[in-house]
Amino acid sequence: MLSAEQNEALTRIGPGTPMGDLLRRYWHPVAATGELDDRPTRPVRLLGEDLVLFKTGEAAYGLIERFCAHRGTDLAYGIVADAALRCPRHGWLYGDTGLCLDMPLEEEMPAEPIKLRAHQAREKAGMVWAYLGPQPAPLIPDWEPFSRQGGLVQVVLSVLHCNWLQCQENTMDGIDMEQLMDALQSARRDGAPPPLPPLDFAFDEFEHGFVVRPGESGAAVTKTSLWPNGLFSGDDRSCRFEWRVPMDDETTLNLAWFFERAAPGSDAALQSGVHFWYAPTREEETGEALQTHQLNKKFAIWLNQAPILDRTKEHLTEGDAGVVMLRNKLFNQISLIQDGGEPKALIYDPARNQKLRLPETAPLFAAKPAEQEPAFPYLAGQPDDAAEAYRRVVESWNRDEAGSP
Amino acid sequence: MLSAEQNEALTRIGPGTPMGDLLRRYWHPVAATGELDDRPTRPVRLLGEDLVLFKTGEAAYGLIERFCAHRGTDLAYGIVADAALRCPRHGWLYGDTGLCLDMPLEEEMPAEPIKLRAHQAREKAGMVWAYLGPQPAPLIPDWEPFSRQGGLVQVVLSVLHCNWLQCQENTMDGIDMEQLMDALQSARRDGAPPPLPPLDFAFDEFEHGFVVRPGESGAAVTKTSLWPNGLFSGDDRSCRFEWRVPMDDETTLNLAWFFERAAPGSDAALQSGVHFWYAPTREEETGEALQTHQLNKKFAIWLNQAPILDRTKEHLTEGDAGVVMLRNKLFNQISLIQDGGEPKALIYDPARNQKLRLPETAPLFAAKPAEQEPAFPYLAGQPDDAAEAYRRVVESWNRDEAGSP
Amino acid sequence: MLSAEQNEALTRIGPGTPMGDLLRRYWHPVAATGELDDRPTRPVRLLGEDLVLFKTGEAAYGLIERFCAHRGTDLAYGIVADAALRCPRHGWLYGDTGLCLDMPLEEEMPAEPIKLRAHQAREKAGMVWAYLGPQPAPLIPDWEPFSRQGGLVQVVLSVLHCNWLQCQENTMDGIDMEQLMDALQSARRDGAPPPLPPLDFAFDEFEHGFVVRPGESGAAVTKTSLWPNGLFSGDDRSCRFEWRVPMDDETTLNLAWFFERAAPGSDAALQSGVHFWYAPTREEETGEALQTHQLNKKFAIWLNQAPILDRTKEHLTEGDAGVVMLRNKLFNQISLIQDGGEPKALIYDPARNQKLRLPETAPLFAAKPAEQEPAFPYLAGQPDDAAEAYRRVVESWNRDEAGSP
Repeated sequence: MLSAEQNEALTRIGPGTPMGDLLRRYWHPVAATGELDDRPTRPVRLLGEDLVLFKTGEAAYGLIERFCAHRGTDLAYGIVADAALRCPRHGWLYGDTGLCLDMPLEEEMPAEPIKLRAHQAREKAGMVWAYLGPQPAPLIPDWEPFSRQGGLVQVVLSVLHCNWLQCQENTMDGIDMEQLMDALQSARRDGAPPPLPPLDFAFDEFEHGFVVRPGESGAAVTKTSLWPNGLFSGDDRSCRFEWRVPMDDETTLNLAWFFERAAPGSDAALQSGVHFWYAPTREEETGEALQTHQLNKKFAIWLNQAPILDRTKEHLTEGDAGVVMLRNKLFNQISLIQDGGEPKALIYDPARNQKLRLPETAPLFAAKPAEQEPAFPYLAGQPDDAAEAYRRVVESWNRDEAGSP
Repeated sequence: MLSAEQNEALTRIGPGTPMGDLLRRYWHPVAATGELDDRPTRPVRLLGEDLVLFKTGEAAYGLIERFCAHRGTDLAYGIVADAALRCPRHGWLYGDTGLCLDMPLEEEMPAEPIKLRAHQAREKAGMVWAYLGPQPAPLIPDWEPFSRQGGLVQVVLSVLHCNWLQCQENTMDGIDMEQLMDALQSARRDGAPPPLPPLDFAFDEFEHGFVVRPGESGAAVTKTSLWPNGLFSGDDRSCRFEWRVPMDDETTLNLAWFFERAAPGSDAALQSGVHFWYAPTREEETGEALQTHQLNKKFAIWLNQAPILDRTKEHLTEGDAGVVMLRNKLFNQISLIQDGGEPKALIYDPARNQKLRLPETAPLFAAKPAEQEPAFPYLAGQPDDAAEAYRRVVESWNRDEAGSP
Repeated sequence: MLSAEQNEALTRIGPGTPMGDLLRRYWHPVAATGELDDRPTRPVRLLGEDLVLFKTGEAAYGLIERFCAHRGTDLAYGIVADAALRCPRHGWLYGDTGLCLDMPLEEEMPAEPIKLRAHQAREKAGMVWAYLGPQPAPLIPDWEPFSRQGGLVQVVLSVLHCNWLQCQENTMDGIDMEQLMDALQSARRDGAPPPLPPLDFAFDEFEHGFVVRPGESGAAVTKTSLWPNGLFSGDDRSCRFEWRVPMDDETTLNLAWFFERAAPGSDAALQSGVHFWYAPTREEETGEALQTHQLNKKFAIWLNQAPILDRTKEHLTEGDAGVVMLRNKLFNQISLIQDGGEPKALIYDPARNQKLRLPETAPLFAAKPAEQEPAFPYLAGQPDDAAEAYRRVVESWNRDEAGSP
């Protein structure tokens, strides 16, 4: 149980807040790169700030305050030219440093330069990442799956109307919520009590976060809680990342990144690409939280807790050891940076940032029988072309085993 | 005219408020029993409290706090098993007393028992009723129409975004609003001034509320204002109840219960059943309050007054004697229970709670000519199967009179 | 840049505010007359007041407080009879002075008369205008285009969720936003920097507002900023007015009035009429501001600034001389009326209020080639019959020139 002050400290992420300061020390993915293809500008809400992301060239981006310094026009409607962003109203032009470079309707530029707050944005693994913290910026971690070839990459974004921490705490739950829910669901169908033995989990801190694993067996790791706001799960053939990016105190962008390897040598392996989409979280008609897919079930839990979970009313138990560990580490790191220290898991040396490996886990979901149509089990709203690509990749293994296409 | 403080006292119904305390002394219908058929859990908002209703067996229900004591998970997504409700997240199991009975992931239960606030829920007349007050709980009144056979029962729920009192005060208006509106409407069509004589109404308090009747004639009762938040109107063949159940200060569940008798011996009399539905209150496209049906017209009035009517600006007249009587009784009963007294209309003795009769009224609406298709005149959104059942019941009388089906 | 207090002073328009007092000295259009055809009552929100407009006869209107003095019933549901408005609930009858004339359910009227606040409403040029200020009321300006014949009149209403001033300041921007946006758009397409020379505009105050014109050339006026919240643009063949009518601090009714002349003697000239519609401002599916039409593009700018633009953060330049002139005049006029003076542009003498001419401007948009289907370029949502009428009027000139239909 936390005090109200402690709950505030962990959940508020705006400029100048303790947690806001800590999270600003890390890169956060904010968009799929494909989102900038049709229109090179996009509003971004990140850590309580209103920003505009604009694409200035091949893999080059600017990220500055959203509203023009002149008279407050929304630069998300701006026009990108010459690696800079022009306000649609009177044509003021901003470079990626936020400096105003041109005022086409004025005889001369003002003596005092005008400058919008500017941040950094970079492309990696089909996502655009943003950094809002002090310089020098660390590197975006080069996770090993980011350089995989011969498979399908999917970037799936969901806007969740709840605080980031109730999402991230879930990564430190010993049991996987989907497994538990499945077990309980089948218990309901059979009328029998759920066949759940008391579970003993251990949480090992390591360089990049925490590993969650069964306590006394040598069995595979269950999942990795990436510090400070991510998740990794999967193996060499199939894996996913999730980041819970705080847009503001009551809104979180859940950005999930999936890799699904095609059978080597298959047509599907050659046709691999990156798909992205926004996944809905609620049924259109009723407004109820969707529960059709594995991550949507988790979203439903988080969304229905409250916009910001009131942790003064909780009753933690032995099984919450991981959650407590995560909170303690957050408090510890807040103090650390307040004392001028360097927080956990920053990477500055490019030589050390190469294909970083994370622990493999057993596949979470048993493969469907080959005769069934493969369907993406994680998130609702998959577009037809992504579904078709997913089907091809999954089926490539069957064909391979059968020895014929 | 009320002072601002008086208006607050009558309209605020959350825990610990004077009116909240008074209304907690009575049972309130909160759902149609059929709502629990497909899914045995349902969120309930009642008197400012967030609760979850769950069906534990044949006509058995639990009603406890909505959010799990562990880490705030929404129990409306819970799983009912063994007459208890299991949290979908870590499997904590709650009985209908609110006590946590099982934590399947823990080695042992905590020394200090964990308990959610629990209330009572019972089934009667096709509705689930809730009681949030002190023990011993009174009985749910056994109104005589509840045991009628050989007719159609309809339970129609409408969520109104306004305070309960502006709905209930309407029961103490002398003239029936529908009649007045109809008179005024025809006046408009004819261009003539409305043919409304000054009306003289009397309001007689009785055991279960107030009877509204013409002042000096012996004519039939107009309607009954059921204490503290109901209405009854009708006769042996056709009648309705309405309860205005406060969900919170600015939201009211109008739960209406209709009985329509089929001609004795007709097929319709044998096929009688219970239908339920949620009636819309606004046009989907424009958002304007629906005015297509008799009760919808009243809803439109209430909804457009303001979320909580400001009674400091009103100008009451002789015609508002009933409204004043209702308010005075509410103030009187608030004082009474604050002094430890037992409020009006509670029934504790089962022997006295048998087929309680209420005054009959003349049918409010003239029967349609037999050649017209009978249509339910009260509430929008009637599903096809209920409409068909209603038509059969109404037409059974024509067939009966004609002596042939 | 304004102080926070100055920004408040110019943007808040409720009863008793300095700007509210100033704007109450003028007539404001609040509806198309056709809106009262089907139903003779309409809720009106104007300058922060909730009112009901009702049509009492040929071109006669009442405009009184929206909620009945009795018990707060919404009079927008009222029944109009005998040039007065009857409450739908208990039949209280209000004349256009706001006085309660009849209480049909009471034996006698109260000794103390009951009176709702009442304002004035008049019809002119297919619009209903309202006046909420002190008596004597000035005249509604009789702009010359209002008496044009032989063409199509369109009244197009848009509800904008932003403060009135960010709309009206736009009338004092030197360059026309649409032209600039078009230039910038084509710059984007070509990759070249926008071909915009530094522009020199002049703003001349005159009796009815400000004329905006190129600074050193004798070229035609660009547009007229009508004092205090209007715009005029166009010539004898085609012109438009726009008024930015404050509904409340954060909502503005943009009411646009268009005249499009048909070729003299053409069939279209004989069939001219008045069309009206509500134009959408956002895409239904995405909720994004529409940018399909010229005025919608401007709306998008205003809507995305913020509900009330924060002028403490702006950086004004030489090019904002017009905006500064407008603000100074507003401050000046606020002081003037606080000292008991008569503000700018009021007309009291009917002899002086006859076909008032405004400066003509060059047509803003080049005519489409004759072989193209003429389409109304200004606002989304034009109904089919208005589109057909518009097409006929525009094409009448081609036919005329060609000498055959």
